Amino acid sequence: MRPAPILPELSLEPAGEPRLPDRAALAARLAGIRPLDPAAMAEARRRLDQLTKPLGSLGRLEEAVVRLAGIAGSADPDIADKCIVIMCADNGVVEEGVSSCPPSVTAAVAGNFTRGLTGVNVFGRLAGSRLRVIDIGIRTEPPEPGIHRQRVRSGTANLARESAMTESEALRALAIGIGTASCLKQAGCRMMGTGEMGIGNTTTSAAVAAVLCGQPAERMVGRGAGLSDAALERKTGVIRSAIELHRPDPADPLAVLARLGGLDIAGLAGCFLGAALERLPIVIDGFIAAAAALVALRLAPACGDFMFASHGSAEPGARLVHDALGHRPLLDLDMRLGEGSGAALAFPLFDAALAAYRQMGSFDDARIEAYRPQS
Amino acid sequence: MRPAPILPELSLEPAGEPRLPDRAALAARLAGIRPLDPAAMAEARRRLDQLTKPLGSLGRLEEAVVRLAGIAGSADPDIADKCIVIMCADNGVVEEGVSSCPPSVTAAVAGNFTRGLTGVNVFGRLAGSRLRVIDIGIRTEPPEPGIHRQRVRSGTANLARESAMTESEALRALAIGIGTASCLKQAGCRMMGTGEMGIGNTTTSAAVAAVLCGQPAERMVGRGAGLSDAALERKTGVIRSAIELHRPDPADPLAVLARLGGLDIAGLAGCFLGAALERLPIVIDGFIAAAAALVALRLAPACGDFMFASHGSAEPGARLVHDALGHRPLLDLDMRLGEGSGAALAFPLFDAALAAYRQMGSFDDARIEAYRPQS
Repeated sequence: MRPAPILPELSLEPAGEPRLPDRAALAARLAGIRPLDPAAMAEARRRLDQLTKPLGSLGRLEEAVVRLAGIAGSADPDIADKCIVIMCADNGVVEEGVSSCPPSVTAAVAGNFTRGLTGVNVFGRLAGSRLRVIDIGIRTEPPEPGIHRQRVRSGTANLARESAMTESEALRALAIGIGTASCLKQAGCRMMGTGEMGIGNTTTSAAVAAVLCGQPAERMVGRGAGLSDAALERKTGVIRSAIELHRPDPADPLAVLARLGGLDIAGLAGCFLGAALERLPIVIDGFIAAAAALVALRLAPACGDFMFASHGSAEPGARLVHDALGHRPLLDLDMRLGEGSGAALAFPLFDAALAAYRQMGSFDDARIEAYRPQS
Repeated sequence: MRPAPILPELSLEPAGEPRLPDRAALAARLAGIRPLDPAAMAEARRRLDQLTKPLGSLGRLEEAVVRLAGIAGSADPDIADKCIVIMCADNGVVEEGVSSCPPSVTAAVAGNFTRGLTGVNVFGRLAGSRLRVIDIGIRTEPPEPGIHRQRVRSGTANLARESAMTESEALRALAIGIGTASCLKQAGCRMMGTGEMGIGNTTTSAAVAAVLCGQPAERMVGRGAGLSDAALERKTGVIRSAIELHRPDPADPLAVLARLGGLDIAGLAGCFLGAALERLPIVIDGFIAAAAALVALRLAPACGDFMFASHGSAEPGARLVHDALGHRPLLDLDMRLGEGSGAALAFPLFDAALAAYRQMGSFDDARIEAYRPQS
């Protein structure tokens, strides 16, 4: 039952990245995000209402079809070619004992992605998705081929004591994400998914999300991969003190990201921005990807229309972040694996929505009168 | 984009049905339901805990694997061959103006199932599922081949004035469902889904569920395929009066079913009972199938362990019924199409759960140490 170690879903074409030397360059780039196409959406809605079913009875799948049309600028959106981007990075805050796993696990799991043995490998294969694994900040040397080396630095600093990264590093990580979306679009990808691997990243995500949502740390913090009560208490305290130390302005998402974030979060935030620039639908995975999506949304509100939430993570802060994003998950699985596993599980729902849209009978077909409203 | 009209997913092998002349015969039959296999479940749990991921991090997918093992009596459960049973029936209560569609739509949509044009056809194909369409009580002659004719009567009586059916008819419909599960098991089916088509059946389901859940009618009633405010008020009043008229004993599910139910609900309740007898996992579709599941659960509490909820229907009573069933839906799509469409959309999640279980790396594999708990 074990899959072959060579992974056809791993694409290794080189990725460029835009130059974003400063905030002004970022702002100029993000001004390029255009809104959804209202004509394509109206045409998709018209076609949905012609299908032989009660009006709107496919619920959120119909909303997805309409939004996919608006993103593609066509009433015939194509999402066949999918890719999940997995940003891998280490976090200096693990020095504070916030994780139940040793930091070496980041590199080990990143290696497992290339051997096809992880959850996202299994679910990605089922969904017909490729994976793109990016080392954006692993601390140790990754021994595995198949990982894109785009390391901004070898792990962040400990945010409990100093800024996790500089703003310049945060901008570089955003640029890597933006460049990845661009590269994938050129390679034929038509739907992106987000994933991550980084021991300590539920801590960084909770810190970033707490500030951006204006919530106390204790409402954002969960057990991650499996913390004890005492360790959960310690993790909450670390986040609370770090926010107190840095006092980042919630209205300045770049500062919040640089001081409290991880390079995985920054890279994924760049993916969300890049997806909007490239007009690709992008599926949010779990809590960490949702925190990254929130950073992106605060940097460029227009990018929210390109996002879809996949699953409600078991992390307690996930619901608050989804509310802030304005996106409700499609799946309720109590998962807390990360990796992009939830995004991969949601992919088939979008294929199903478009299949219904294209294959169901319409009132125009002969002999089909069912559900036509009574006059 | 239109599929061929000949449907490979339609199986037409003949179905037997057990003789259930009276309540005693039903009780004797249901005494044959055996509990889940604890040894198979323990072995599945042990194997899940060997996979290289944080313990329990696949959440409800892990619970599904464990339960599938308990149902199959094997730590290697097989669910490859799937079939959705679609019970089709008319409801006399439509005379009261409780539906936005004319009753002729029941037969028309039943016909569309055989032409591959409905939502459940599209989603069933994607999930690799067969469909079995049963006329258990359509009012008019179905003109379509491909529908199993197992009609108990040509539509129920108007429950607002008299008992919808006799207890003997309810027993016959239960027997058809039980026989269908048996027939499918013999034909190789290893996972069942439930679906229905019957104009007026959100009214019958709300009536049955209100009594079994001990809830007032207004908490169970929704807009079905698309009622106006005034019609919703009328529908609620019809249900309230009918419950007042019949005053069925909530502790007597057969009486509740016969007086307020539909033949589709009765047939599906039989499917749930039959699935438990045949040790087949069975996926609940939306509100109507959930009401049928609740009838089955009250008739034989042990059958609840064989059920899985697929999606949270947009009908407001669905949540109350899921709570009463003790099953939380996996999907949150605001759908209200019926047909088995939600069950079909959930099928791939069970395949994904088993794929993770079988294909992910384990701590026994060489080089894989990630997530092993620190000592």
